[in-house]
Amino acid sequence: MAVGPIEELEKTFLQYVKKIKTYEEALALIYWDLRTGAPKKGVEQRAEVIGVLSGEVFAMQTSKEMGELIERLMPYKGNLSEVTAKTLEECKKQYERSKKIPPADYEAYTVLVSKAESVWEEAKAKADFNLFRPYLEQIVGYKKKFVQYWGYDGNPYNTLLDLYEPGITVDVLDKVFQQVKEAIVPLVHKINASKEKPRTDFLFKTFPKEKQKAFTLKILEQMGFDFNAGRLDETVHPFATCINQGDVRITTRYDEKDWRVDVFGVMHEGGHALYEQHISKGLSGTPLAEGASMGIHESQSLFYENIIGRSYAFWKKNYALLKQYASGQFDDVPLGEFYRAVNEAKPSLIRIEADMLTYSLHIMVRYEIEKALFNDEISVKDLPVIWNEKYGEYLGVRPQNDGEGVLQDVHWAGGDFGYFPSYALGMMYAAQFKQAMLKDLPDFDGLVAKGDLQPIREWLTEHVHRFGKMKKPAEILRDATGEELNAQYLIDYLTEKFTDVYRLQ
Amino acid sequence: MAVGPIEELEKTFLQYVKKIKTYEEALALIYWDLRTGAPKKGVEQRAEVIGVLSGEVFAMQTSKEMGELIERLMPYKGNLSEVTAKTLEECKKQYERSKKIPPADYEAYTVLVSKAESVWEEAKAKADFNLFRPYLEQIVGYKKKFVQYWGYDGNPYNTLLDLYEPGITVDVLDKVFQQVKEAIVPLVHKINASKEKPRTDFLFKTFPKEKQKAFTLKILEQMGFDFNAGRLDETVHPFATCINQGDVRITTRYDEKDWRVDVFGVMHEGGHALYEQHISKGLSGTPLAEGASMGIHESQSLFYENIIGRSYAFWKKNYALLKQYASGQFDDVPLGEFYRAVNEAKPSLIRIEADMLTYSLHIMVRYEIEKALFNDEISVKDLPVIWNEKYGEYLGVRPQNDGEGVLQDVHWAGGDFGYFPSYALGMMYAAQFKQAMLKDLPDFDGLVAKGDLQPIREWLTEHVHRFGKMKKPAEILRDATGEELNAQYLIDYLTEKFTDVYRLQ
Repeated sequence: MAVGPIEELEKTFLQYVKKIKTYEEALALIYWDLRTGAPKKGVEQRAEVIGVLSGEVFAMQTSKEMGELIERLMPYKGNLSEVTAKTLEECKKQYERSKKIPPADYEAYTVLVSKAESVWEEAKAKADFNLFRPYLEQIVGYKKKFVQYWGYDGNPYNTLLDLYEPGITVDVLDKVFQQVKEAIVPLVHKINASKEKPRTDFLFKTFPKEKQKAFTLKILEQMGFDFNAGRLDETVHPFATCINQGDVRITTRYDEKDWRVDVFGVMHEGGHALYEQHISKGLSGTPLAEGASMGIHESQSLFYENIIGRSYAFWKKNYALLKQYASGQFDDVPLGEFYRAVNEAKPSLIRIEADMLTYSLHIMVRYEIEKALFNDEISVKDLPVIWNEKYGEYLGVRPQNDGEGVLQDVHWAGGDFGYFPSYALGMMYAAQFKQAMLKDLPDFDGLVAKGDLQPIREWLTEHVHRFGKMKKPAEILRDATGEELNAQYLIDYLTEKFTDVYRLQ
Repeated sequence: MAVGPIEELEKTFLQYVKKIKTYEEALALIYWDLRTGAPKKGVEQRAEVIGVLSGEVFAMQTSKEMGELIERLMPYKGNLSEVTAKTLEECKKQYERSKKIPPADYEAYTVLVSKAESVWEEAKAKADFNLFRPYLEQIVGYKKKFVQYWGYDGNPYNTLLDLYEPGITVDVLDKVFQQVKEAIVPLVHKINASKEKPRTDFLFKTFPKEKQKAFTLKILEQMGFDFNAGRLDETVHPFATCINQGDVRITTRYDEKDWRVDVFGVMHEGGHALYEQHISKGLSGTPLAEGASMGIHESQSLFYENIIGRSYAFWKKNYALLKQYASGQFDDVPLGEFYRAVNEAKPSLIRIEADMLTYSLHIMVRYEIEKALFNDEISVKDLPVIWNEKYGEYLGVRPQNDGEGVLQDVHWAGGDFGYFPSYALGMMYAAQFKQAMLKDLPDFDGLVAKGDLQPIREWLTEHVHRFGKMKKPAEILRDATGEELNAQYLIDYLTEKFTDVYRLQ
């Protein structure tokens, strides 16, 4: 059977793309290993391996060969399989994004960012923004330059948002964040004023690590995590990583004085992992075998951590089991009281310690600052003051110093502007998915209370997981829920939950 | 400061060599991961990563660029640093060895070997040599052809021996094996006839895995294993692997009914690891940062496992500690009886289960067969008969079937002819090193009995470890002990030990 020249070209292209993926797989394993127990004396040399392999990935993504393959295949895009066509688009986007930055700028930026992270660490430890400020100014400078190279539509900040959440814009975010702010800020104030605070002392008794682990494994099993296609390990800053589609690893940290770190952390990372484990195998070996976006990914982790993991139904099923593994700390605590405790909401200074109610407000602070920076409305030097003002306004708390204020996150030191909104979008998406899911699975709570999470996981696979990057985030949302992004679902969800937990009526 | 063209060339060469090493490091990590818990559904895809990265390594080792670098640098070998010069030699050897095999032969051989291993597995399980025979015949055929391509000195088998033990020859092995055989076979017969067999029943009581592990870690500490430059994990078939010089990992298997598997296994792998951890850092990034040979490597593992680990002095120090971790199984067992038990010697059919006395005899069977095969004195079809006869003659036991006879080892299925002698050489080297060490550390037993293993490790680093592949095995032996390979030290060591254990006088 004769094979036409296009078929040959397509084959060459897919092989080339697959080769890039094999390098990325080796890198993913190296990163996992570094974060789960690689001996420290081997780390410096391992960094060189990362350098060489990452260099090869970048070289392949931007090679003359890649450029030619894209150029020669583009005219035939309509004749290619859908997977190849989308892969081609992804590669083109990546190729052009890299090619538009002059190599000298890119190199200088890379060096800058690699230095900035350790300066940020020091600045944070010393709570001294001025230490970090010159680096941040340069990073913002480069990012503004990059936006010019890349071009933008409507608002310069859109180009940065698109890096993490393809298709999302300032227009959309302004609208939904405004809506959330208007509903949540008053709710937070009511909660602060409420006399019906949940009792939480019993959460912080000693819960031995091995027992936590045994309980956590039961929960992962209930979630349908496939242990033949993944594993659970310990680390300092927990994460999930897809090494390949049959090998999705999650990690956790055990705090013997706060079992929630492990249990809700694992449900969160497990949600990420279920996504990766259920992306269609037909996308394997292409850049499409990944989550659609940061925000969609976060919607899956938050769905399991919050919508399932912090629901009354979930603990109706699992509280007795938890008690079996714990050493008596919950013996005198009725389920209702326990449920309220794991849903405690309290305005705080630190984003990563925030509860689900106030979390969006932390994100809005960052969003508004980033947007203003990239529209030249504020300067880096003003950030500490603006930060503290916004925390006061939205959360009613004020950092004592920059270490617990503007310096708390690593993202800016890494040049990751446009990233934060995805976290908040994740919870909006999750609430919207939940609402749509209820049409197909009206007895959602009943399923959770039985520990029968399979139909829920199947619904998510059917509507979200399997598509990988074949669809844009907005497309997934629209096809799964029948409408555009609608923050009202999150607002309703939070209002209902916290009205109940804090007995606001 | 001007840099001459040779310096430039040397730099390019070393960078190229280092790049190969970084790929090998990624591969080593992948192999370690596959053998210590990688989820099984990810394995198939991981095999493709191995294929791509190994392919790159082979391509670089045999590239035109490598060929040119070697050719251009060779005339200046005398002007290069010793490390570069030796690296150049290693690369040249590798390059020529690969280039001399016609690609078509190499490819056919690779395919053959990859199939042969699973056929061997089936044949072993069914104890049916005829299943495996056609594959073995072809493998031997290719290996004979390769020897012709590579050329040989004196005996065709020498070329195969050189792959694992550079410089060793049939002449040397014939002599030492004859000497060992003459001394050991009668000793084995005396032991078999002895009425003074050690009691061993207490070895096989339940010893919980976690307790074994805790004891093992204490022993590794005593050995001076650097946990900042290595780690201990679980696996099915234990091994040690140097991922880089600051990251040398060992593995073990826990048998709750036989703690020796773990403890002596870890001392063995720990001996390999100490070697790698103490190779001079100046060799890093070159192919010289490895053990000098299979045999020298094995000498280090056997030194720790047998010469230290099965000595009376070692257990004088550690028996009480072992009892602390065990659950009473040794309570009524005096040290002397325990010592005899861990030195039990008994002719058996299976090499990997053999004790240190009879181990060399298992190797001799294989050596004599391989030598005869590659000198066209016997054919593959005759192997089962010859195997069984030799086991009868040397060990006084006869396999009931080929599964426990000629099919027991995987080596031939992988084309690894010439490999086995290194195992026996390892123990000869170890005994000879011990003898030389006694001149510098006359109170060897006193040190071991105090748990002060540092001077011993330092002696081995000084005379063996630090050189990596900078010296040939024979050179290391000569420089460290002042003489050529001398099997008499092993014979004396074994005679003394087993005369004592079996009360032969």
